[in-house]
Amino acid sequence: MRHLLSLDDLPQSTLIGLLDAAQSLRPAALHRSAHRPLRGHTVANLFFEPSTRTRASFQLAAERLGADVLNFEADSSSTRKGETLTDTLRNLEAMGASLFVVRHTHSSVPASLAAACAEGSSVISAGDGRQSHPTQGLLDMLTIRQRKGEDFSRLTVAIVGDIRHSRVARSDAQALRTLGVGELRLAAPETLLPERDDPSFAGATVADSLDQALEGCDVVMMLRLQRERMDEGLVASLEEYYRDWGLSPERLALARPDAIVLHPGPMNRGVEIADAVADGPQSVILEQVSNGVAVRMAVLEHLARG
Amino acid sequence: MRHLLSLDDLPQSTLIGLLDAAQSLRPAALHRSAHRPLRGHTVANLFFEPSTRTRASFQLAAERLGADVLNFEADSSSTRKGETLTDTLRNLEAMGASLFVVRHTHSSVPASLAAACAEGSSVISAGDGRQSHPTQGLLDMLTIRQRKGEDFSRLTVAIVGDIRHSRVARSDAQALRTLGVGELRLAAPETLLPERDDPSFAGATVADSLDQALEGCDVVMMLRLQRERMDEGLVASLEEYYRDWGLSPERLALARPDAIVLHPGPMNRGVEIADAVADGPQSVILEQVSNGVAVRMAVLEHLARG
Amino acid sequence: MRHLLSLDDLPQSTLIGLLDAAQSLRPAALHRSAHRPLRGHTVANLFFEPSTRTRASFQLAAERLGADVLNFEADSSSTRKGETLTDTLRNLEAMGASLFVVRHTHSSVPASLAAACAEGSSVISAGDGRQSHPTQGLLDMLTIRQRKGEDFSRLTVAIVGDIRHSRVARSDAQALRTLGVGELRLAAPETLLPERDDPSFAGATVADSLDQALEGCDVVMMLRLQRERMDEGLVASLEEYYRDWGLSPERLALARPDAIVLHPGPMNRGVEIADAVADGPQSVILEQVSNGVAVRMAVLEHLARG
Repeated sequence: MRHLLSLDDLPQSTLIGLLDAAQSLRPAALHRSAHRPLRGHTVANLFFEPSTRTRASFQLAAERLGADVLNFEADSSSTRKGETLTDTLRNLEAMGASLFVVRHTHSSVPASLAAACAEGSSVISAGDGRQSHPTQGLLDMLTIRQRKGEDFSRLTVAIVGDIRHSRVARSDAQALRTLGVGELRLAAPETLLPERDDPSFAGATVADSLDQALEGCDVVMMLRLQRERMDEGLVASLEEYYRDWGLSPERLALARPDAIVLHPGPMNRGVEIADAVADGPQSVILEQVSNGVAVRMAVLEHLARG
Repeated sequence: MRHLLSLDDLPQSTLIGLLDAAQSLRPAALHRSAHRPLRGHTVANLFFEPSTRTRASFQLAAERLGADVLNFEADSSSTRKGETLTDTLRNLEAMGASLFVVRHTHSSVPASLAAACAEGSSVISAGDGRQSHPTQGLLDMLTIRQRKGEDFSRLTVAIVGDIRHSRVARSDAQALRTLGVGELRLAAPETLLPERDDPSFAGATVADSLDQALEGCDVVMMLRLQRERMDEGLVASLEEYYRDWGLSPERLALARPDAIVLHPGPMNRGVEIADAVADGPQSVILEQVSNGVAVRMAVLEHLARG
Repeated sequence: MRHLLSLDDLPQSTLIGLLDAAQSLRPAALHRSAHRPLRGHTVANLFFEPSTRTRASFQLAAERLGADVLNFEADSSSTRKGETLTDTLRNLEAMGASLFVVRHTHSSVPASLAAACAEGSSVISAGDGRQSHPTQGLLDMLTIRQRKGEDFSRLTVAIVGDIRHSRVARSDAQALRTLGVGELRLAAPETLLPERDDPSFAGATVADSLDQALEGCDVVMMLRLQRERMDEGLVASLEEYYRDWGLSPERLALARPDAIVLHPGPMNRGVEIADAVADGPQSVILEQVSNGVAVRMAVLEHLARG
């Protein structure tokens, strides 16, 4: 593995190897330790979309491995001056950076930077367009595995919400397929379902309602509803959305009693998820966040070893 | 002490303990040293108001103790996306942060984050609304003590300027009372005086004029005049304000010859303070800034020890 | 040398000493090493103009020498609140910073901060107005010397483009003169040539055309064309500019076969320089960027030694 742009083409053995590495990095993930394998490496965070958690998570992952970190955000970068992104990347390479974490609204950007970078460099997508958010997919798999064990073929998983526009959903579905998930159900209003032939969701079934999707489920993966969907006319109102697709405690009772609930954050409480679920005993949402640092450490270390 | 939200409820012994700790940290405050008691801790600076000096001061304090630092500013945070501040805090906790430095225009925010955070976490107010700016209060006390000794009962202190809107004035008044200040005088135009029953200023007397407030004073604490006060009609003009309430060398001569002048910065030179005073021999304004790093180190270390 | 504000008044021996130091720092420039001579020092980057590469280059230079770094950018600084820049500098000094890297649109700013700072502090211009960008001049000289040797008297150098508004051109011309360049040619449309009596370009000749400037040249220094020049009516169109003043492979063939091409970045590809030149074998543009870190390390270390 030279870059991490998508989970689509990642062999099962590589994916499981990254999860194993992340699992063993869990103790090192939350506190600076003596383990500094990336000392002498420079990680550049190129975020062309605003982000709190993902940027912070990558920064901490890099620092806890001993790397130097450069943070760039869209409006402070000289892309304003008309320089190409490729030139920005090459300049940072010329200053010694070799690991590039890239978030961009256009899904082609990380791949085109990966194609343009020098031989010793690696690009990690931190979210590109609607297409892919591979480290989120990995951290979701790690979280599921910690609670449900390594045999994904016994699991029924539901992905619920704005699947059409979600890179998280695509990376999750790809990883779940790679790990041989038993059953993958999609639940969303008509307007937010993916195209029928979207290959990311091959093998998944579309549920008629949220209740149907939750019935007997082991893992419920909720998605954020962007408020733009209302302006675009894809959702009538937040109240109606919550009534039909929001995860309330009553609805969650339809799933298995030991079902777990994931959410990639940031949450719209009262829109896609009730407070009592978000903060309840079945929620693993904060474990996802902790696993995020460990997963990003595993990916950075794997790519830095080349 | 679990959090530092206000100086209001801080026992005298704790306050003096923090000043003693800060005093002994002075040599370590200005240069990175081998003293790294916060190694392995992560400090998150959550600034929802712009700030140069306070944010830099907390960042340096944390780094000089060996902590990792995450900086967040309002417009780069995902609060834009509608996430609650509590969720932001919990996410950062899940990434390993345990010390939260919070500045916000709403005075309830640091307290509500303190109520929501995990057991091992601490919140430090870096300025909330008009209510409180406890580390500024502490650094002002340290600065006074360095010049005037430990017996505050012998001191006459004047606070001058926009007291009504000032969290600095409230924290200073609380700390001065805790330390048993001899006399506290308030001097401001009618429109900028605090409410009569504001408990932060209990025991203080209101001077009729700046001259009266300065007469025989040991310590003069000047406040910044926000330019908004003119738009709000609370101040007629900057010229008039300087004429009536600005600290000129002539006016300062009314105080004791060894009186010291403090200002929390940023200064409006020529509005609330004359250049000759700001840069003169009685000014301790830059000592305040140096003490600020030491005080913040003392607070962070105290809270990290739990 | 106490500050680095311009290359104008820099003695040849000092300039060569900095180039030698930078050359020997090249291996340390691209990766964090055990060489940490600035440990205990704090570098403040005060950027009042947006910048990706220069700010990143100074940050990495400081960190690779072991310094602590504070980054300030215009809109997050309290200059918004009306504080003077001098007060900002003095506050940062009071927090322990002693090396100030300053970029500002007004060319007088770095010099006035240098005049105001404390005895142990140093100011480095990172670009001021149109006047000076001394570390860019140094890194350009280092890049030329690496390729062309130490005897500048044998070299013919052309500076091409928006010379009138370019601080890079001024610093380059000053350094080239100090190093005894053989011939310096300027090539630009009438509207972008410097004033006839601009002392920075004393001794240079003005070419009638780009072809004439390139003829037999050893070093071609291209400049960025700011898009504002079109709005200002100084350039008719980007197409016309490229036709008359853009460096195409055909034009570059007029120079010596071993001529090198420099550009300070960010490049406007297809405006002042063709892709085939920017990415071609004669381009040393990325070497300039790598040399930039080494040069800034040399300058910081030189000034920190006092």
